[in-house]
Parts: sequence; structure tokens; C-alpha cells
Amino acid sequence: MSAPRVGVIGAGQLARMMGESASALGVELAVYAYEGEEPCVPLSAVTDERDLEAFARSVDVLTFDHERLDLDELARLEGLGLAIFPSTGALRFSDKAHQRQHLHDKGLPVPRFTIVRDSLEAVAFGDDVGWPIVLKPATGGYDGKGVHIVDGADAARRLLTDGAPLDVPWVAEELLAIDHELAVVVVTGRDGERVNYPVVSTVQHDGVCREVTVPARVSPSVRDEAEALALDVAAVVGAVGVLAIELFVVDGRVLVNEVAPRPHNSGHITMEASATSQFENHLRAVLGWPLGSPALRAPAAAMVNVFGPADGSDPRARAADALGGDVHLHLYGKSPRPGRKLGHVNAIADTLDEAHARAWGAAAALGTDRPGDER
Amino acid sequence: MSAPRVGVIGAGQLARMMGESASALGVELAVYAYEGEEPCVPLSAVTDERDLEAFARSVDVLTFDHERLDLDELARLEGLGLAIFPSTGALRFSDKAHQRQHLHDKGLPVPRFTIVRDSLEAVAFGDDVGWPIVLKPATGGYDGKGVHIVDGADAARRLLTDGAPLDVPWVAEELLAIDHELAVVVVTGRDGERVNYPVVSTVQHDGVCREVTVPARVSPSVRDEAEALALDVAAVVGAVGVLAIELFVVDGRVLVNEVAPRPHNSGHITMEASATSQFENHLRAVLGWPLGSPALRAPAAAMVNVFGPADGSDPRARAADALGGDVHLHLYGKSPRPGRKLGHVNAIADTLDEAHARAWGAAAALGTDRPGDER
Repeated sequence: MSAPRVGVIGAGQLARMMGESASALGVELAVYAYEGEEPCVPLSAVTDERDLEAFARSVDVLTFDHERLDLDELARLEGLGLAIFPSTGALRFSDKAHQRQHLHDKGLPVPRFTIVRDSLEAVAFGDDVGWPIVLKPATGGYDGKGVHIVDGADAARRLLTDGAPLDVPWVAEELLAIDHELAVVVVTGRDGERVNYPVVSTVQHDGVCREVTVPARVSPSVRDEAEALALDVAAVVGAVGVLAIELFVVDGRVLVNEVAPRPHNSGHITMEASATSQFENHLRAVLGWPLGSPALRAPAAAMVNVFGPADGSDPRARAADALGGDVHLHLYGKSPRPGRKLGHVNAIADTLDEAHARAWGAAAALGTDRPGDER
Repeated sequence: MSAPRVGVIGAGQLARMMGESASALGVELAVYAYEGEEPCVPLSAVTDERDLEAFARSVDVLTFDHERLDLDELARLEGLGLAIFPSTGALRFSDKAHQRQHLHDKGLPVPRFTIVRDSLEAVAFGDDVGWPIVLKPATGGYDGKGVHIVDGADAARRLLTDGAPLDVPWVAEELLAIDHELAVVVVTGRDGERVNYPVVSTVQHDGVCREVTVPARVSPSVRDEAEALALDVAAVVGAVGVLAIELFVVDGRVLVNEVAPRPHNSGHITMEASATSQFENHLRAVLGWPLGSPALRAPAAAMVNVFGPADGSDPRARAADALGGDVHLHLYGKSPRPGRKLGHVNAIADTLDEAHARAWGAAAALGTDRPGDER
């Protein structure tokens, strides 16, 4: 017996942050990167093995940094008895059409939607529920990329290559007047043990998460509803490891927006705000270890994402400027490009306002403007 | 500009834990390991470069995981203008004779001592202050290794090769009735900014640190005296980065036992107990960045060291057993040998008793017995 070994498909920031937790736990993290992928983790941890089966056999359990996966191949490896968590059954919920349909079929509250395979179906849906509608491909989008607000039939036809069958299904959904966005990170162990982190408020700008705060800025009853709903969703998805559930609050009702069966941007705040981070809990879950407490360790916390500044400068060169104000920096080792997500800042404090101000102050020092401030 | 690069001489657990903080800060850590050293850090970070000057030139700043250093060579590199922190002047305080003499000369309270160069001088000291006395070599000892309690002239002559000049000076000191052992971690920035962590209680067994608790189990006035004394010591040593100061409480007086100009076992508790860990603050200090808050984030915390069990088993195989009880595991990736320090457990809680019980519970689950329990 030497160290437990966890294999991660993908070498992005989630793998990097899993690596920090793995180091503390005495767990070896091996990373399987795709051709051309810029690794965010130390190179030695990145394999040049191109044989996924051999890689899976070299570790105690296989898990994931992203969702660009060959699920059929993974299912074959699962069939050989290799430990893969979340399972391919849970990974299928990365598909936005699959997740939306299944959650709806189980009676969980979701926006009014339909799955469309061509522009005709999208136009029929828009004519039915009223324009504008939201259109998004079932796979391939992230950070709001691929989410389109479409204001009429002509625009839908242009977007969906008029009449031709789509490569992947798209989700068409009603455009809601969203009062608030929330997220809940749920962790499920291999033995079924399940814990949830406290619900957080999230703020998106152009579809990209900009900030997360906890406690969520909604009433206690809405918080309770959100966390209960997230646990119901987790029971449907059944993902071992971290499952992130994004929620809408509309007219006082909580609806499921999307789910992601992996550590998630809405959970980065747990790195300092919680007794156990989402990354440590993900590792503990997929290894079959007991889960750690998700309890808050401070009255309030804020997370703000850091993006590459428009001038192409590197936030790492400004780290010292950001660290004056009692914040926790998490930079991902990615080369800077304008608008690229390069890190995040966490702040914990006695009040939400203080945490929020500190986190944004540090992000600003790193060259990330607050939406609305830049114009 | 890409990532800031910190070079570390030595690939032990301190380098490993610096690496966890470096990852979060977006800092690249390069590790210079000695021949035959078992690295505790991912292999890619470890250089096989055997040219220290080339290594120092490849990083923004050079720092240290241990004290087995060629100070003359480091001083030469300093003379070339390379950034080396702590400086060689501060590193000379790793020598127990040097530190004891200098702190005494500055009027700081230390045990009654003399520096001896042969057994005759040791016997003269013992005859003067009364036997038994403590004898320890100025360099080469760690974790209490090399510290001898010598009960008479014959024993001193046997230990110090009767009459022959010693290879290195030894410190002879009075054997004190120590009521309590304390430690304070101080951090000094390149600009002279200085912060101290709250004083902790430490418990040694056979000279090896077994547990650390905070708040220290002494009166508030003794705590204040200890922290003020530690800051006085730091001003004498002038070490940029982390400086650990070990203290004795004897008859209500606080004396300086030893200092170490690097992250230290007595500071591992800061990883969860403090707003900023000693490892993050060490990196921030040597990089010339602002220091982070050393404030406690919980009412009480305990750290317990994990050692290789007598049966040769690997604590990593029992991690799941230790994680049931709301603790934070830190395992160093070292191969297990009976009695070898392999990791530590931190617990934070509302009371010292609870933190202490949880940390020891987890250590026991990993195969580390509490001194006194094993017999």
C-alpha cells in the first residue's frame, strides 16, 4: 500500500484545485490531459498516456475535471469493473436536454421547455409560449457560452440553420423574469451518504458567473426550499462526488436551471468559507471515504471571479496589490487572455457587505472590473 | 511576465505544504532536492539541476525547507545580488550555539548555558550549575535528536569523546524544571512588516513534538509576555519569512529555548486555525508581498503529529478511518517507517478539549498512539 491514487480526466483549474486537496490528504493525483490542453497542474501529474483504459487501471478511481467525455468508452470501462465516479449514468446529466427532461419527468420544478431537433420545433415552441425564448445546445456550452436569447422566428431560423436537423439537440425554454439566481453544491458518497453546502447567491453577467455570496440573499424559507429541492435533484441524478445545482427564483418559486456533476464555480467559495472544501469532499466521495462537514466557518463570504484584463496583462503580476486586504487568492496558472477566467478571490467576514467589498476590491486590483463599472 | 517563481532548497514536507499554498497563489514552486532525498512534492517540481547558482538564477527568490545548507555558497550568491530569504545572516541562527549566544548577548532571557568545545568544558559547566545538565550539538539535530540529558561527569565524557576537540560546538545548559512549553511563529516581510501568530502550547515526548494547541494553556499575561518576547527575538534574528520561536515557561518566567528561521511544526496548526497559513505567509514574505492576517478563525484548535506505526503500516491506508470526526488531514507522501513523522491532523472547535479530543482521535485512527497510551 502506498498512496491512494485518483485519476482525473482533464487538466484545468478544477484538477488543479483537487490537487491542492489531494496533497493535504496524502492522495496522489494523476491527470489525463487531452492533446493541446494547457495543463493547470504540475506537469509530472499529467500523463502522456493515450490509452484511457490503461490510465483507469493505474488509479484507484477515475473522476473528471470537465464534461467533454466519451461516455460510451467510459461505460465500457465501468463494465470491466473499473471505479469511475461520477458514474456514466450520472455523467449523462451533463447533457442539458437529458437533465431537463429527466428532472421534469420526476416532477421537479423546471422552466417551461421543450427539446428541439430543428428550427421548426423551436419556432413552434416560441409561438406557443411567446417570444423571446432561450435556446441552448444540449452539450458543448459552458460559462453561458451557447445560451441565446432569441426574440422571434426569424432569429431562431438563423441561429438553427433553418430547417436542417441539428447536430445535437437544443433546449428551448421560456424567458423568465428571474428575480434571483442561487446554487447548491451537494456531495454524495459511494455509500449514499449525502451532504449539501448552504445555498449561495450567484450573479451572472453575459451568462458568465461573476460573483457568489453566502448566506444567499433570499429569505430563510426560500433558502430552505432551494436546499430541499437540490437534495431532490441529487437523488434523481445520483452522482457520486460533487453535484452543483443552479436554481432560478421566479415570483418566489424556486426552479432548477442546470446541474453539473463535478466541482463547480459556485462551490469555489467553500475553499475558505466551509469546514471542508468542495474539492476535498469530491475526493473523499469518489474514494469512498466519509464526507467532511459543509458547515460555514464564518458569518459571511464572497467569491469573485478573476478574468484576463482587456490589456492582456497577467493578474499574477499584480498579486501583491490584491493581497493587502485580507482575501484569499486562487489563481489557476493559466496564460492570460482578455476575458479568460484565470482565478477567483474569496473573502470571509462578519457581514456580507464587508466580504463582498473585500473580494471585489481584490479582483479590481487584479484587473477585473465589476460589471457596470467598466463602462 | 508569467507566474512568480519561488525556489525551495529541500523537498520535504515543508516544501510540499508551501506547494499547496503556491498553487492557490498562482506561484510556481521549483524544488532543489539533494541526492537521495525522497521528495514529498510532485516530481516535476523537483529539479535535477546540481548547480545551485543556475537554480537560484532561474527563480525570483530562493528559500528553504531545511537547514542543512552550505551558507558560504549561499552568501556568495547573495553577494551576486540574487534574492535569498531568509538571508544567510538569519540562517546562521539555525546554529544552536550561534542563536543562544546572540540572544543572550542582546539581553534576552535564555536558560543558563555555555558553548563547549570538548568534554572538559562540559564537565566544568556541570560541576558549576549542578548535574544533570543538557548537552546538544549546535548543528545537525532536529526533532529532539541530539539532545542529551547527562547526569554526571562520566556520562559527559562518554558522550563527548573524552577530552578530544568536538567537530562542532555543543551547547551545555542547565536542566530546568519546565512547567510549560510554548511557541510563537513570527513572519517578517521584505519591507520589515512583521506579524505574529498567537502563541501556542506545545507538548514534546522524547524531544519530539507531539501536539500543539491554541489558545496556549497559560495565563493571558504569560501569553502576552511570550508574544512580546518572540517579537524581540525576531528583531534580533531579522529573518525574512517565517521564524519559529520555541519557549520554556519556568516558575512563571518565559525563556527562549530555540529558534528556527523557516515554517515550523508548531505552525502547522495555522493551516486551518488561522486566516492565513504559515506557508502562505512565508511565500508572501519572501516574495515581498503584503503579509496575511494571522488571526485565529476559531475559538480553539489542536494539532497532533502522525508517526509511522510500529507495525510498519501506512497511515494513508487508514485515512478514511480518521476522517469520520471533523478533522483536517495533512499527510506528507513519505514512505512509512516506524516512528517517522508522516503527517499531522488539525482540528478546530469551540473548546480546546473538543479540538484536542478530535485531533487525537484521528491520529489514533491513523495508528499514532498518545504518549503514555502505548504502554
